[in-house]
Amino acid sequence: MTNSKGRLYGIGVGPGDPELLTLKAYRLLKSASVVAYQSADDRPSVARSIVASYLNDRQIEVPFHFPRALDPYQAKPLYDKAVIPIADHLAAGHDVVVLCEGDPLFYGSFMYLFTRFAHQYETEVVPGVSSPMACASAIGIPLSYRNDIFSVLPATLSSEVLATQLVNADAAAIIKLSRHFAKVRDVLQKLGLMTRARYIERATMAEQRIVALDEVDADRVPYFSMILVPSNVQL
Amino acid sequence: MTNSKGRLYGIGVGPGDPELLTLKAYRLLKSASVVAYQSADDRPSVARSIVASYLNDRQIEVPFHFPRALDPYQAKPLYDKAVIPIADHLAAGHDVVVLCEGDPLFYGSFMYLFTRFAHQYETEVVPGVSSPMACASAIGIPLSYRNDIFSVLPATLSSEVLATQLVNADAAAIIKLSRHFAKVRDVLQKLGLMTRARYIERATMAEQRIVALDEVDADRVPYFSMILVPSNVQL
Repeated sequence: MTNSKGRLYGIGVGPGDPELLTLKAYRLLKSASVVAYQSADDRPSVARSIVASYLNDRQIEVPFHFPRALDPYQAKPLYDKAVIPIADHLAAGHDVVVLCEGDPLFYGSFMYLFTRFAHQYETEVVPGVSSPMACASAIGIPLSYRNDIFSVLPATLSSEVLATQLVNADAAAIIKLSRHFAKVRDVLQKLGLMTRARYIERATMAEQRIVALDEVDADRVPYFSMILVPSNVQL
Repeated sequence: MTNSKGRLYGIGVGPGDPELLTLKAYRLLKSASVVAYQSADDRPSVARSIVASYLNDRQIEVPFHFPRALDPYQAKPLYDKAVIPIADHLAAGHDVVVLCEGDPLFYGSFMYLFTRFAHQYETEVVPGVSSPMACASAIGIPLSYRNDIFSVLPATLSSEVLATQLVNADAAAIIKLSRHFAKVRDVLQKLGLMTRARYIERATMAEQRIVALDEVDADRVPYFSMILVPSNVQL
């Protein structure tokens, strides 16, 4: 009797440019019979749109959605429910390739699948190009080097914590800006980082936009945006 | 008259597995006539070994070497000299593809080329899969999520700074371990992080090795090794 369980693949599809998939992610995607991705009811999946030209009609697509929840206790049963369509395919012996923006295990929702399935099903994760590196390449600035401390800071942090973290790091990427942008810009201004810091939207996507920090409209900052504070060392 | 200047490409070749090159890096590499890479006199280039099966006999290979230097003032003239072979090709109108382990602008020596050439020559950087993400995938642990603070910490830092940084981050990658391993392990022990932290050597390479932290021989820790302290959140 052969093992009838499906395998789970979490593949990083990178920051947006379809050519930034790895050869391995591309190979697994092209040969996949079931392709799953996060998709809210009201908008198309970004991960799917990145690889749209690589998909074919014979592939079964499984959108799933992790709804917003106020706290982990609320979220857990909702997430358990959200993964049922994927569980069904795995239990039926189908391999499932899950598309993950950027890298699957770095600020990615793939972890909610990983923690639920990795102990039951053979699971392989294919790392992807992550957005801080993609943003640095797109802007054209060395981000960190030698003995730098580099930190990824969510813009949801308080001004005080953001300031302390920025002072204690040599380089940083500030993520999840959206409605927190104005607060972050204030912090950068107070720390004298306005000329060093750089802002970018939708790096490597067709709609990529690089704007001076003081020209950003704080009311129109998309989720796919980032501020990089590159290292100050020069050599 | 056409522009006779060559173009400079810095391409991330990822952490080690040749299949973790991006489609874009692969395309540029296959069509390159001049391929440059760091190579110390006494050992083969890791970046070249990653892509060896993609190279062909018609390509001109240009090894270069940034020697160790005690401080930036010593290093600058040495680095200026090291890049001359690449400058010669660019000036002669040849495009040059530079191989970079991991990502070119994230703790990579490509920055020394970037800062010297990007103002003179058209320069394009292709981001790559970086080692913290590759290590997380290889070990099989979600690294960071939601509103985590994630920090990359060089093991060259003092015990005090390492401890403070680890306390102030939700997740971390400790790089450049080599002869600093014992110091780092002591810090992790004092912080009660020995069971959470994970050690890995040569992630995604054929010689990949995952060892329990307390079983690592501190005298035999290679440069291509890392300790990950993954986020503690579960959902």
